[in-house]
Amino acid sequence: MYQLKNDRYLRALQCLPVDYTPVWMMRQAGRYLPEYRDLRAKAGDFMTMCQTPDLACEVTLQPLKRFDLDAAIIFSDILTIPDAMGLGLYFETGEGPKFKQSIQCLSDIHQLPIPDPEQSLRYVMDAIRLTKKELDGTVPLIGFSGSPWTLATYMIEGGSSKAFTKIKKMLYSDPKALHLLLEKLANSVAIYLNAQIEAGAQSIMIFDTWGGVLSHQSYQTFSLDYMKLILSQLKQGKKSQNITSYVPVTLFTKGGGLWLENIINSGCDAIGVDWTVDLSNVPQKGQIAVQGNLDPSVLYADKQIIEANVDAVLSEFGYHNGHVFNLGHGIHQDIPLEHVQYLIDAVHRQSKRFHHD
Amino acid sequence: MYQLKNDRYLRALQCLPVDYTPVWMMRQAGRYLPEYRDLRAKAGDFMTMCQTPDLACEVTLQPLKRFDLDAAIIFSDILTIPDAMGLGLYFETGEGPKFKQSIQCLSDIHQLPIPDPEQSLRYVMDAIRLTKKELDGTVPLIGFSGSPWTLATYMIEGGSSKAFTKIKKMLYSDPKALHLLLEKLANSVAIYLNAQIEAGAQSIMIFDTWGGVLSHQSYQTFSLDYMKLILSQLKQGKKSQNITSYVPVTLFTKGGGLWLENIINSGCDAIGVDWTVDLSNVPQKGQIAVQGNLDPSVLYADKQIIEANVDAVLSEFGYHNGHVFNLGHGIHQDIPLEHVQYLIDAVHRQSKRFHHD
Repeated sequence: MYQLKNDRYLRALQCLPVDYTPVWMMRQAGRYLPEYRDLRAKAGDFMTMCQTPDLACEVTLQPLKRFDLDAAIIFSDILTIPDAMGLGLYFETGEGPKFKQSIQCLSDIHQLPIPDPEQSLRYVMDAIRLTKKELDGTVPLIGFSGSPWTLATYMIEGGSSKAFTKIKKMLYSDPKALHLLLEKLANSVAIYLNAQIEAGAQSIMIFDTWGGVLSHQSYQTFSLDYMKLILSQLKQGKKSQNITSYVPVTLFTKGGGLWLENIINSGCDAIGVDWTVDLSNVPQKGQIAVQGNLDPSVLYADKQIIEANVDAVLSEFGYHNGHVFNLGHGIHQDIPLEHVQYLIDAVHRQSKRFHHD
Repeated sequence: MYQLKNDRYLRALQCLPVDYTPVWMMRQAGRYLPEYRDLRAKAGDFMTMCQTPDLACEVTLQPLKRFDLDAAIIFSDILTIPDAMGLGLYFETGEGPKFKQSIQCLSDIHQLPIPDPEQSLRYVMDAIRLTKKELDGTVPLIGFSGSPWTLATYMIEGGSSKAFTKIKKMLYSDPKALHLLLEKLANSVAIYLNAQIEAGAQSIMIFDTWGGVLSHQSYQTFSLDYMKLILSQLKQGKKSQNITSYVPVTLFTKGGGLWLENIINSGCDAIGVDWTVDLSNVPQKGQIAVQGNLDPSVLYADKQIIEANVDAVLSEFGYHNGHVFNLGHGIHQDIPLEHVQYLIDAVHRQSKRFHHD
């Protein structure tokens, strides 16, 4: 029977007791690592790294060789689905993701295919299969996708945006078209994530990076409802004695701190929260797992400050089960490596006092 | 005795009864108006318009000639203070504000002067005096500034930012330097706003555009506390039968919806809220005024949708006193003028049912 050497992350996501709080970092495989920058320089560009399973696997494992992290996350991008739909994802230095083609009207939406994950997204599945093998049961492997709303923002705006005026224009003046797109995306994401689970992903994150730009009413109908549609289709398995028989799902809406009750009621296993949220105010602690929430900029400061901020996060969450320590957003690229090491050690060391089993 | 023909805005800010809900729009004097674009083309650039009192006055009055707005806001920029401190504010098309010099260390901060509003910011005072005269008691005139935290972000980052890594690096690794800067800015803003009041401003807005990027602990100590320091120094006058004897202050932290209790406890008269906030959840309604909170993108949609969204905002706030209708952020530049007209009429017409006096 497959067993994990370190199952703290999966146990925490099921709100089961652990001996200390598990920690991983968003973008833990990334540019702050010199070995990542070396590989990137050789590979040429970001998408080549994503689309070459050997490279994606190597990058995924890089941070785990350096640090005592409690989970691996497959090296990929949140925008693989619209790319597989034919929009042509590319990256320009310092400008964030862009699409060669953007979605402008209903007929554009009708023409979008639902990607077959073992065809146009096979490189992700192969990377997961390879990485799972290489991990050899040390820590669990996280699979992920962008949320339907977040994917739609990039597809309609054509890339990153400040005010999201194009998609909001559609939202308010042609909501039916947007709903059609979101439904198509939700179905595509569900198929994609199920394929990731099939390939070996042991936990799923849905990144709703831009849900926080919506109004409180629109968040429910244009973002959360479509994450629920995904949840209803996921083959998560069943909870049992064997912790790995169930694939927990974490929803992370950046800037969604006002709507935590609604997010919890979606039926997810865990919510991600950013640093604007006081963890002592999170509802239903101990019944739903919480991931977060250190401001990534804390890692610029010296060890004493990192120590104090780790203490603050752990103390806010308190003695409940169900905490996964993380940054509230991706790690910045100019963070000193010794600060990362210090953070991870501090979380493990300090959190022991909150766990007695 | 000076009396206003339309004092609904000032009455609402004091939570006094009104016959209908007053409305104004952030950036109501701006690029969506063809007459603004004409004047801008003649003037050459944005800063020339700000710094020429005749032009600033003309631009301030432009939207009031078209629409039945319940307040005027002086045409200026939130970043006039760092510009007067010598940092050299300028605007590049499509890129937002920038500074020729940025703040990098403690000695930069020590060297910053506290501007004398009647010297280096005299153009703002002259614009207020002229506009107040031209308004001739029709509607109240709003003065404003950026919050210390928001000013500091631009001064340290050198312009707009996505992740605010420079200022956050200072916040976590050299907090004393940042506190010194924020204190200097708070004192400068207090002097500046008192001069605006002296020149004729009848209400004050403090725009904390970037307070929402802070952690919940840091928001209190690095943004709100310095807005409180300003509040403690403002010469607001006394509340009396004559509604204009008191100058109410509105604090608007964009993305600050999680911290409304704290903001209310600062001693301000009103809080601004964006569209992420459900007005039915705002604490202490009727005791503190609330400004907001329509998503500006609603104005892209047709009249029926605008009507429904106005109804939603008014219904959430309900039958309390103390509501100023506004957008949750500045109006977009490509909004049709007839939609603006429709919005203002809809607020006035629909809100009558919530007011009985």
